[in-house]
Amino acid sequence: MNQQYPSVLLEKAVDEFSKLPGIGKKTAMRLVLHLLRQDKSAVESFGNAIITLKREVKYCQTCHNISDTESCQICSNPQRDHSLVCIVENIRDVMAIEATQQYRGVYHVLGGIISPMDGIGPSDLEIQSLIDRVQAGGIKEVIFALSTTMEGDTTNFYIYRKLEKSGVDMSVLSRGVSVGDELAYADEVTLGRSIVNRTKFKTTL
Amino acid sequence: MNQQYPSVLLEKAVDEFSKLPGIGKKTAMRLVLHLLRQDKSAVESFGNAIITLKREVKYCQTCHNISDTESCQICSNPQRDHSLVCIVENIRDVMAIEATQQYRGVYHVLGGIISPMDGIGPSDLEIQSLIDRVQAGGIKEVIFALSTTMEGDTTNFYIYRKLEKSGVDMSVLSRGVSVGDELAYADEVTLGRSIVNRTKFKTTL
Repeated sequence: MNQQYPSVLLEKAVDEFSKLPGIGKKTAMRLVLHLLRQDKSAVESFGNAIITLKREVKYCQTCHNISDTESCQICSNPQRDHSLVCIVENIRDVMAIEATQQYRGVYHVLGGIISPMDGIGPSDLEIQSLIDRVQAGGIKEVIFALSTTMEGDTTNFYIYRKLEKSGVDMSVLSRGVSVGDELAYADEVTLGRSIVNRTKFKTTL
Repeated sequence: MNQQYPSVLLEKAVDEFSKLPGIGKKTAMRLVLHLLRQDKSAVESFGNAIITLKREVKYCQTCHNISDTESCQICSNPQRDHSLVCIVENIRDVMAIEATQQYRGVYHVLGGIISPMDGIGPSDLEIQSLIDRVQAGGIKEVIFALSTTMEGDTTNFYIYRKLEKSGVDMSVLSRGVSVGDELAYADEVTLGRSIVNRTKFKTTL
């Protein structure tokens, strides 16, 4: 549908919204009209929040997580185990792991995974800074927590080869049947790995 | 999931996005991270588009459609038939009717429909301005083009009663089986109306 907008300003706003992933022209129009019905202050608060974020956000110099300061809350926390580094793709993964409250180490955010199809090579990611970080010493173990996809495995392997000689321990998240899942519905590969990597029966978590 | 955000600025931006209709915290996070990966100028252009729209947008003084000027493109077009007024809920309906290229009259945008459940009464809508417009003369026919819902019918009826004595012609959009639809899948009410309101067979549209 080739629609004519009654206002150039409206068209511009709809265009900007429809650039967002998963948002088409119709949804963009709905969102813009919703915002138009709000107070002027609410709309300015919306627009400024994202501009301010982009302008003022910092990335932690150690782990490259998003932060309001030069060193993020996790890296600057003396109670965390700084000898244990979990390698993740992006800050959403950091938040997901933090939400489990099971991890007391620190992170290293790669900013993506190696994906030649999308033109992302090792130099586009924070891999060199990870190697430098390991070589600087003080790190006993790195945990690979990337997606279990072809790209994730490639990235794991690439980093493994780079760190192999450093003598640091390397581990990977355990894979298996999800908690609460019925066996009959688990896929074969996952179930197969669950059996091969079975753990000792414990009466506590 | 009670997530801890690594940055206050990030949390603020995610909060603002998740206020939009149909957008939850997870989608908001995805959109904000997408914007963070864009250039600074692209992000400012996004934020400013919506702020500028809200600050500078005007509503046509005649039909209340969104406009960049005091009188909208349609109302200020001398080639449109100003004696024919189509009553619609919002500007999306104006755009939908304009896209058909079948209508040469002008519009009156109510800004909603009467909906006591949502606390929207006649005085919250541009109904009085419609009555004034009809009473000022020069209008021969008004076309009701509101939703065929309870609220739409209520609004139609309310306006009908108000305009009854003005002597203006009043019509309503024809309802019937959609073009391209199979009869077997049309709902009973629509199909029933299609039979009752059948039109003379014509070999042209």
